[in-house]
Parts: sequence; C-alpha cells; structure tokens
Amino acid sequence: MNQRLERLVDWLREKDIDFAFVQAKANVFYLSGFYSEPHERLIGIFVFPNAEPVMVCPNMEKPQAIAAGWEYDIISYSDSENYWELIENYLHKRNQIGNSIAIEQEHISYSRANALNNIYKNANFISVEEKMHSLRLIKDDQELAILKQAAQLADFGVEVGVSAIKSGKTEMDILALIEYELKRKGIREMSFSTMVLTGAKTADPHGNPGITEINRGDFVLFDLGVVLDGYCSDITRTVVYQEINDEQRRIYETVLAAQNASLSICSVGTRIGDIDKAARNYITKAGYGEYFPHRIGHGLGIDVHEFPSMSENNDDLLQEGAVFTVEPGIYVPNVGGVRIEDDIVITKEGFESLTKYPKELTIV
Amino acid sequence: MNQRLERLVDWLREKDIDFAFVQAKANVFYLSGFYSEPHERLIGIFVFPNAEPVMVCPNMEKPQAIAAGWEYDIISYSDSENYWELIENYLHKRNQIGNSIAIEQEHISYSRANALNNIYKNANFISVEEKMHSLRLIKDDQELAILKQAAQLADFGVEVGVSAIKSGKTEMDILALIEYELKRKGIREMSFSTMVLTGAKTADPHGNPGITEINRGDFVLFDLGVVLDGYCSDITRTVVYQEINDEQRRIYETVLAAQNASLSICSVGTRIGDIDKAARNYITKAGYGEYFPHRIGHGLGIDVHEFPSMSENNDDLLQEGAVFTVEPGIYVPNVGGVRIEDDIVITKEGFESLTKYPKELTIV
Repeated sequence: MNQRLERLVDWLREKDIDFAFVQAKANVFYLSGFYSEPHERLIGIFVFPNAEPVMVCPNMEKPQAIAAGWEYDIISYSDSENYWELIENYLHKRNQIGNSIAIEQEHISYSRANALNNIYKNANFISVEEKMHSLRLIKDDQELAILKQAAQLADFGVEVGVSAIKSGKTEMDILALIEYELKRKGIREMSFSTMVLTGAKTADPHGNPGITEINRGDFVLFDLGVVLDGYCSDITRTVVYQEINDEQRRIYETVLAAQNASLSICSVGTRIGDIDKAARNYITKAGYGEYFPHRIGHGLGIDVHEFPSMSENNDDLLQEGAVFTVEPGIYVPNVGGVRIEDDIVITKEGFESLTKYPKELTIV
Repeated sequence: MNQRLERLVDWLREKDIDFAFVQAKANVFYLSGFYSEPHERLIGIFVFPNAEPVMVCPNMEKPQAIAAGWEYDIISYSDSENYWELIENYLHKRNQIGNSIAIEQEHISYSRANALNNIYKNANFISVEEKMHSLRLIKDDQELAILKQAAQLADFGVEVGVSAIKSGKTEMDILALIEYELKRKGIREMSFSTMVLTGAKTADPHGNPGITEINRGDFVLFDLGVVLDGYCSDITRTVVYQEINDEQRRIYETVLAAQNASLSICSVGTRIGDIDKAARNYITKAGYGEYFPHRIGHGLGIDVHEFPSMSENNDDLLQEGAVFTVEPGIYVPNVGGVRIEDDIVITKEGFESLTKYPKELTIV
C-alpha cells in the first residue's frame, strides 16, 4: 500500500473507525494517483483499517484507474446501474461493519451520506476532512517538484501577458494568447478561470475579463495558474501601461510592502493569522484598510484553494512543507486595483517563493 | 419577483414547506441571474413561501450580486466571519420556522445540511433537486437563444480544429489553437476540458490530449464546448486524416446511423430511455455493442451535464423545450474510436439540432 493510504489506515486504527469513504476528486487522486473528473458520477475509495481498500468507479474509467496504479478491488458500474446496490452487496459480502464511518463532511453530498446511512443505519459519521487536510498539507519532494514547475509555468503565463500589452488589445486578446502559449506547452487545464483586467476593472477583485481595451495609464492585472500533473499554481501580478499617477504608485508600493511584511514572517511556527495581519496592518496604516476585502491567501496543492485558509483568525502554526499563496490587494473603486500574489513553500530556513516573476513596479 | 423564483415559491406553498435553501452555483444563477464561482465559500439563497428571499454571499461579491439584479436582502460575510451565525441571527430575527426545509440533497454538503440542522433541530429535509430540475429542464426563449449561440461557437471550435489538422501537429497544438480562437471571440470558459485525440487514443472515451502527433490514417476526435452567458454547449466530431481503412469506415458509418436512429425519434412524448436504446440497438446489431460503454447523452444548460440523464432506464418522456446531447460512440481498443455528438432541443415539430457542423464522413 502506498504511504498515503497507509497513513490513513493508521489513523482509522488509532481512532477505531470501521472505514473511511473518500470521494472528493482531489482526495481520490491524492490516495490513488487516479486523476479523473467524475462530473455527477461517483468515483470513490473505501479504506479499511484491516483490509485492502476498494475503489468505486464507472466501467468506462476502470482501465485508467488501473493504469494509474490502483491494484485493489474495483466496484465498477454502468450508467444504468445503481452503484449503491453494488456497494452494499460488496460490503455485505465482506461482512463489513459500519458503526463509525469517516466521510468528507464538507465534500460529500447530503444524498451520498444518506445512501451510506441506508446501508449502515446506526452509522456515526466522523469527519475525515481534517485528516485529509493534514495529510495533504505537507507536500513531499515529488509534490514540491511538480508545484515548482507549475509555478514556473504561471510565471511564463505572466511573461506572455506582459509582453502582449499594447494599446487597442483587449483583456480577452491577451488572455487568449496566455492560454494558447501555455497549452502549446502541454497544459490542459488552467487552475481557475484566467483573469486579465485593465483600468478601472482592476478594482474588482473578482472581475470578469472582456473586450475592454488597454489604455495609457491603466493598471493591467493578471491572475492565473495552471494544473500540472494534478497540482495547481496561482500567481497575480499588476503592471502599469505607459504612465502612472501618484495614487497608483502609492497603491502599488503599499501592496508590495504589505506582501513583504507578510513574507518576512513566513517560517516554521508562525501563527497563520499573523501572516494576514502583517499585510493588513500595513495596508490599514497606509489608509487603505477598507480596500483590502479578502484574506491574505489560501493553501495550494491539488486544489487551487485548499487547506489552510490564510485568514486572520487562523491560529494554526506554519509547518515545513506547507504551500500557500500570499496575495494582498488594494482595490479602490473608480481608480483601480493592485494585487500581488506568490506561491510560497515553508522550508527549514524560512520560505521559498515558487513563483518568481519580478515584482518591482513595472511600467510597460 | 422573477418568474423562476415565483415558481419555486408556488411549489413551497403547495408542498407546505417552510423554506428552500439553494446553493449550487447553477441553481443560484438560475434563480438570481448572479453567476459566480464561490470556490469553498458559500453563496446561497433562502426562498420563503410568504416573504422575500435572501441571499448569502461574501462581502466581496455583494456588488456583483446587486449588479446582477438581486433586489432583496443580502447576508454578506467576510472571510473571518462564521456565516452560519449570521444566517441564524437573521432567520431568528424574522421568526422563521424550519420544520420542513427543501435542500439540494445531491449538491449540498453533509456539513452544510448539518449546519442547517443545528439551527433547526427538528428539521425534516425535503429534496428541492427535482423541482429545480423540472424548472431548469424547459428552456425559455432567452435561454434557447443563448444555447444556440453557444452551439454555434462549438461548431466554430470544431471548424478551427479541423482546419488545423496537419502531419506533425500534436493534439495540444490543435487544442491550444481552438481555445485561442474561441477566447478571442470573448469566451472565458470552456464548458469542460477540451478534448482533441488522435489515432489509437480516440478509443478512450475519456482520453487525455497530449503531445501525440497526428499521422496519416488517424481518426481525430474533437469534443468541446463553451460557456456563454452561463450556458454550455457540447459537440463531438470525428474526422479521418488523409486515408481511411474499411474498419474505420464501418465504425464511422455505424455511429452516424446510430445517431440518426436516436434523432429520428426525438419528439415530444418519446420515452427518454428509447433514445438511448435506438442507437444502442443499432450499434449492437452491427456487432459493436460492447464498444459503446456510455449512455446516449445528458441534459445541457447551465451545467454541461444536467438533468435528465439520457440513459436507457430513464422512463421520463421528452418535453418541448428540453435540451440535451445525443452522442453515440464506438471505441475499439487499438483501432480507434468515433463519437458524434449534437445538442438537441425538442420543439413542437420534433427536434432541432443546435450544433450544425457537418457529419458526413470527412477525410481531411
């Protein structure tokens, strides 16, 4: 059994849990190496404390699951079969009890939990979420190698975007070119909907790129990332086109200094909430507190937003091998917004930034 | 109140349900016009039988929700707030009871259902899923206009792809170009991960595009769609490069005839399972039954896979205004695969295919 499954098995034994059922795409991938988008179909893994695990997946996906290295039983089903019946038969054949069952409480639907409950009427549901978080939190060398490469590709995406800025080009023109160049490098999937925003639209932290043209004096904001071998990157850079005014400069320098304030305390043992506070205090002192409406960042790995949430009330301490974003932003309505975001890994020595695209104020 | 909310309100009254809580992205969009990717954050709508609805969303998204036309209360929260406390306070202030609560049983997490249960300890959960399905099933004129345009863009994507086929080009080269041209037309999001497969890889219905080069005698399969104004398209076409052998021709003609067998019975009142059976019987008689491992199609709308599932055991009858895919396929290991997929709307007269890219066997 691979080390990840083994660690989950150890936990089941320690906690005296009858079995775990894991079916979030990211967790299935983490435990099995099988990366698949099930849509509304079920792909899941039952993990037992004292027996081999079993996967449930559509007939159609079975060969890929095996190719990905799954060497245990597979309960496979066609679109016209009720997989819960197949699961029930299988579990009963194995005389599997289920008084305490660990499930992904935040990532399993009410109806799937109910279906399990119908098989095990007296089941007590325990959350496997925190355990999966803590397993996935600390990236191993193989994961870090992929995350670094994914971050390099994000850097490259920004480079393509910045090089393409020109009067008359629209946000979508530049976005299309960034994704084209990344896809030609073999990237199938961006880690989220790429953002290229310009001018006043940069003031919207969740704005939608469109046919807005780039004009002299605009902020141009890029927020993008790729999925590489199942792992995500996520970078934001903001540049200015042709000329900058004093307020834009003040906003930019404040965000950059705020990010540095957060980064300077990124090391093993730092309280996560303090990372948020460091940037927030800086921005607040500069008078922009009300214009920084989001947390400082989020964990990064198989999911682009994963555990931990880097928000000011998070009392957890940073651990070596944790990967997360640090992305302060200031968004002033009708003026514009700046966000600077890097992917950070905590190391023995402090931290390393996986994304490396330059951050000095750049006037294109 | 818009007609969609009104219909849900009518249903709550009719069924004597205290309120509905809807938080799947697609349902929130359907009811409010607010299209937003919440990631792990909550964006939801409480709908009451005898009071105005209320939305829950992050502070950051509040302006967009209002801009999208939401004119009722909004419970907004920051990343450091517990929104369930805010929701509880709000509902208690309104003296809202919750003995029977309609939720998206298949699309709400166990933990969110639990959080509601903590507010209303004696709540009986009813599924709002079927009601939302039946509301969303029948597309209105505005939705059909968008779906048609989305289908045209899918046609265009195939056109770009077919035109780009050349010896030495890889699957990813062609995929990158398709998405580039679509993005330049303003498409921000593909409706799923674009598929360009060539040669033996076409035999995998869920294969992954890569750096495989196109060679003489290859099938080249395109499966793609766009998201336009919140609605999805989904087309598959398969062409042959330079030359074709007898088995490839037999496979292609079988799939095309099987699709026609299904399409020929697409009209109001047809049992959905029969659409699947028509193609399946044809393919089985031709000796390829075991190589058609998936259902004939799926509903299409805000979600690329939505209600109804077009599988052989579905006893529901087709209704006017329903939109779905018809996509038989034959996948012969080591030989190759063909799938032909169109987006179909049921009309008074029968059906109309929204996707219109030619389907005669094409040797590029």
